[in-house]
Amino acid sequence: MRGFRTDLAMESIGGERSLPEGVLMDEQQLGEILRTRIVIESPEAAGVLARPCGEYITLSCRGLSHCSSRSRKQLIQLVAQAVRAMLPRQGDVLVVGLGNRNVTADALGTRVVERLLVTRHLESVLAEEMRGRLRGVSAIAPGVLGLTGIETAELCRGLVSHVKPAAVIAIDALAAFDSARICSTIQIADTGIEPGSGVGNHRLGLTVDTLGVKVIAVGVPMVVYASTIARDAIAQLAEGYGQPPEAIQVLLEKVSEGYLGEMVVTPREIDEMVLSVADLLSEGLNRALQPELDAETLHTFLHG
Amino acid sequence: MRGFRTDLAMESIGGERSLPEGVLMDEQQLGEILRTRIVIESPEAAGVLARPCGEYITLSCRGLSHCSSRSRKQLIQLVAQAVRAMLPRQGDVLVVGLGNRNVTADALGTRVVERLLVTRHLESVLAEEMRGRLRGVSAIAPGVLGLTGIETAELCRGLVSHVKPAAVIAIDALAAFDSARICSTIQIADTGIEPGSGVGNHRLGLTVDTLGVKVIAVGVPMVVYASTIARDAIAQLAEGYGQPPEAIQVLLEKVSEGYLGEMVVTPREIDEMVLSVADLLSEGLNRALQPELDAETLHTFLHG
Amino acid sequence: MRGFRTDLAMESIGGERSLPEGVLMDEQQLGEILRTRIVIESPEAAGVLARPCGEYITLSCRGLSHCSSRSRKQLIQLVAQAVRAMLPRQGDVLVVGLGNRNVTADALGTRVVERLLVTRHLESVLAEEMRGRLRGVSAIAPGVLGLTGIETAELCRGLVSHVKPAAVIAIDALAAFDSARICSTIQIADTGIEPGSGVGNHRLGLTVDTLGVKVIAVGVPMVVYASTIARDAIAQLAEGYGQPPEAIQVLLEKVSEGYLGEMVVTPREIDEMVLSVADLLSEGLNRALQPELDAETLHTFLHG
Amino acid sequence: MRGFRTDLAMESIGGERSLPEGVLMDEQQLGEILRTRIVIESPEAAGVLARPCGEYITLSCRGLSHCSSRSRKQLIQLVAQAVRAMLPRQGDVLVVGLGNRNVTADALGTRVVERLLVTRHLESVLAEEMRGRLRGVSAIAPGVLGLTGIETAELCRGLVSHVKPAAVIAIDALAAFDSARICSTIQIADTGIEPGSGVGNHRLGLTVDTLGVKVIAVGVPMVVYASTIARDAIAQLAEGYGQPPEAIQVLLEKVSEGYLGEMVVTPREIDEMVLSVADLLSEGLNRALQPELDAETLHTFLHG
Repeated sequence: MRGFRTDLAMESIGGERSLPEGVLMDEQQLGEILRTRIVIESPEAAGVLARPCGEYITLSCRGLSHCSSRSRKQLIQLVAQAVRAMLPRQGDVLVVGLGNRNVTADALGTRVVERLLVTRHLESVLAEEMRGRLRGVSAIAPGVLGLTGIETAELCRGLVSHVKPAAVIAIDALAAFDSARICSTIQIADTGIEPGSGVGNHRLGLTVDTLGVKVIAVGVPMVVYASTIARDAIAQLAEGYGQPPEAIQVLLEKVSEGYLGEMVVTPREIDEMVLSVADLLSEGLNRALQPELDAETLHTFLHG
Repeated sequence: MRGFRTDLAMESIGGERSLPEGVLMDEQQLGEILRTRIVIESPEAAGVLARPCGEYITLSCRGLSHCSSRSRKQLIQLVAQAVRAMLPRQGDVLVVGLGNRNVTADALGTRVVERLLVTRHLESVLAEEMRGRLRGVSAIAPGVLGLTGIETAELCRGLVSHVKPAAVIAIDALAAFDSARICSTIQIADTGIEPGSGVGNHRLGLTVDTLGVKVIAVGVPMVVYASTIARDAIAQLAEGYGQPPEAIQVLLEKVSEGYLGEMVVTPREIDEMVLSVADLLSEGLNRALQPELDAETLHTFLHG
Repeated sequence: MRGFRTDLAMESIGGERSLPEGVLMDEQQLGEILRTRIVIESPEAAGVLARPCGEYITLSCRGLSHCSSRSRKQLIQLVAQAVRAMLPRQGDVLVVGLGNRNVTADALGTRVVERLLVTRHLESVLAEEMRGRLRGVSAIAPGVLGLTGIETAELCRGLVSHVKPAAVIAIDALAAFDSARICSTIQIADTGIEPGSGVGNHRLGLTVDTLGVKVIAVGVPMVVYASTIARDAIAQLAEGYGQPPEAIQVLLEKVSEGYLGEMVVTPREIDEMVLSVADLLSEGLNRALQPELDAETLHTFLHG
Repeated sequence: MRGFRTDLAMESIGGERSLPEGVLMDEQQLGEILRTRIVIESPEAAGVLARPCGEYITLSCRGLSHCSSRSRKQLIQLVAQAVRAMLPRQGDVLVVGLGNRNVTADALGTRVVERLLVTRHLESVLAEEMRGRLRGVSAIAPGVLGLTGIETAELCRGLVSHVKPAAVIAIDALAAFDSARICSTIQIADTGIEPGSGVGNHRLGLTVDTLGVKVIAVGVPMVVYASTIARDAIAQLAEGYGQPPEAIQVLLEKVSEGYLGEMVVTPREIDEMVLSVADLLSEGLNRALQPELDAETLHTFLHG
């Protein structure tokens, strides 16, 4: 079944009964939230799962955009915790919002960046007692290749060499296999962004290899490709009726090639959901980046 | 195949080899555009097609939002022509933009209304030579029930009794069965808006029966329901393999009930497409409503 | 000094040393907030101040959009209290957002309406225990005359006769005399909206006389007319130098007639400020309208 | 009178009866459009006018956003002509949209960049016959220091060293002295952007010195600072009454220091005007950058 388009490590493993060798996985249920930690340790396992070695934290909660305010607070804390654990102890951080702000389902990165506490330029103007308590944060949502003529990876490389952050956090809208995961799962990984992933299909990746510093990827599924839905329906039917695999393969290919190629499946309310998830992620990131500031002080910095 | 969700008369008929009795249909290929005219004449035919008696003009052209500028001009003329033929010769017109402006795929009605030449309030301030050459046009995009607490049909009834137009034009985003029709088909009908149609699922309809004046409905498919895609894939597979109908039925119901219910399929670029289609429709409507104004004068009124 | 354009009752009185007869005024300092209550009792006083009889509550706090979160909570309570005291004990309420959503400084009404808990359509679907605890609220932002061809007052009259609310709350962006009041003052009045007031210059008013039910007006200054700034500068200079009044008058008229007529003065950050003030007002109104719901339940209704 | 805040070279010269030495100026009336060419030749003249040496083309036409369609076409041609004459004959061009997209009056740069034909990434995918006919264009609207933590000039330096364009075009919203110039004047200069100019007050400049390549600056006044209006009114009054200069100076300083500091004066319809001017500028720039493409082909590239 692998080969369906998904950006979630959890779904690559998903259907399998037993984990491939070289993969660790543990789960914790915390109220309404399921926290899953997957570690891909060996290059062999990375090959089997078609995903780089590294740690993947997944937070699942049906309806990130309309969960109880108790679960929302918990999610913010879990995001902050996971990101902070992956960040270097010291040094500036550059946050990059990927995707196209003019495409609702691809605008998550931009929306998160708009809500971040940016501090890199404040050091010199801060009151004495604040100096050293703020981590230097810069943030940019550079826009997609079709709008800028510049590969996001190229542009980030230029920025990194100039801004010299200790780490990059890249935020992106993801594609999932299972439409129940849309706006219901947050994935935080220390592997960076792989080429070809995301709703916008970045051609180049953003990784420690391309940027020279650690890249933490934070993403939430916003779409399922329509061809995936069709293929899934066919596969279910085929399984039920014991069709010979070759026949299924022919149909699957037919579906994938057709006009469904660039069609995406989203909840009808995706516009509102993106904003709500962006609020949640940015709160988690602001706490991860500025652990010395309490919520009130953060609020004053952002809105005051 | 009927039962799949579609707002296009053309698709209700679609798969059938022979037309039901009481239905007329003729087609004209005009350059890249296919113009189809369907007339449902008898109540029996209306029952079979689950659609009210009346005239349905459909203009199809792959890619309304990015066709050649020649085809674009032709489409604008064909829209103007079809709407003008359905409008009463004289009297004010109220244009109602249906749908939710905050939901990209449901915002077409609002976006068209924003681009209309509104004239009802100008009569007294017009230069002598313009008087009598402008039709009185008012326009409103009242918003959906969930945002206003007022049924759109109720609200329109109040407006109509006050503004006393000779006809209403209602603009709406539609759902189609075939995703190739998204942003590729314009439907213009003299039947008004049926209850339960549109992306936003209006509970009440807007028709001559509810409003007391003729209602011309103008719509463009913006989504396919995800359950339709899945059902279509299943149906195709089943047909190919000669599955017993009962088994298929079970599967179809399973798919329809599931989480896919409120999921919609759209092109990834739907945000941009809606604006482009709104430009096209509003140009056609402005010409239909103000046949005495040339393009230049219309432009000056709108932007000058 | 009277004659300068202002929609604030407080500013009509402003410069005077002694109150005109028939006007009551008291002030309370509550932390950072100054609460002023003005009552215009007699038609004579109304004539002198060019403002209808009634009660005007003004809440002033430098920087509504970036005050401390403590002051923000207090402001929300004071808004809720003032509005609740003016509302009839029972019956539905229709909230009307005035102004043009496409003009940043005039969009306050629309932005507040977007954030309201609308309930009129929920009665039949509510759980048993909620029935009777929710006041029926409907809300609309109909758009300005130039966009709809329909006077807002006409449109509201139609709606009121249909929806039959016990009261109307009208939200509007105001013009002030003193630019320090922009986004720093909330005015709540039981007098309705006067003709010619607001940033958008409504031609007709919204009052108990035109609508047949009580109209509570809630507004915040968003602009000062540029001609006011110029006139103020001239007046100050003239006062300082003891110029003869006739000469000043000539200059004042020259300034008022010129190109400055339609120019407005706003803070550069007006876009962000409008959204922040809309958040604040809508929270206050939601509490005034639904006193039986606690903050958590309100949040769930709005976002859940 | 100098010292009032303006970003227009024409206004620095404005009031003077005779030109300073080292300044050339000629004017052409072309229909409704006045085309002024100012050349500041000597460092002494640059000092007197507080503006760098170079060529400044100014196109003035009352109401850029609502002029006749004939004047609009002419303006587009004149923009294209002026920019093309300043561009190097060959080599890629990087267009930078300055300003804050969330502040209406400061969003011009962003809005122009959104409408540009970006081609740098297309070279490899173009049909044989198009190769060599398209100039490589990249474009970015990086956002302001407060939102990114990175100086725009820093960011551009990084980009330029990476993208290696032959020239940069920087688009910015300007401040004027005379409010009649808002949305009525286009300034095109080969001097780059000076530190402290623009609505957003960039701290660093974008010039050949900071970026290493020629920088063409294109701007349109969108605001007048409110303190300028007040100072102007005072100055006019003072002139009329022959006040002693010291007294005026005191008053002028008082006005400049006060709360008016960050207030801006704009037409009430600034939101719509910005979009209209962005359309006009981007058409002019697209023609300047791609002289081999006719209007139809440009349209197809942009929207097809």
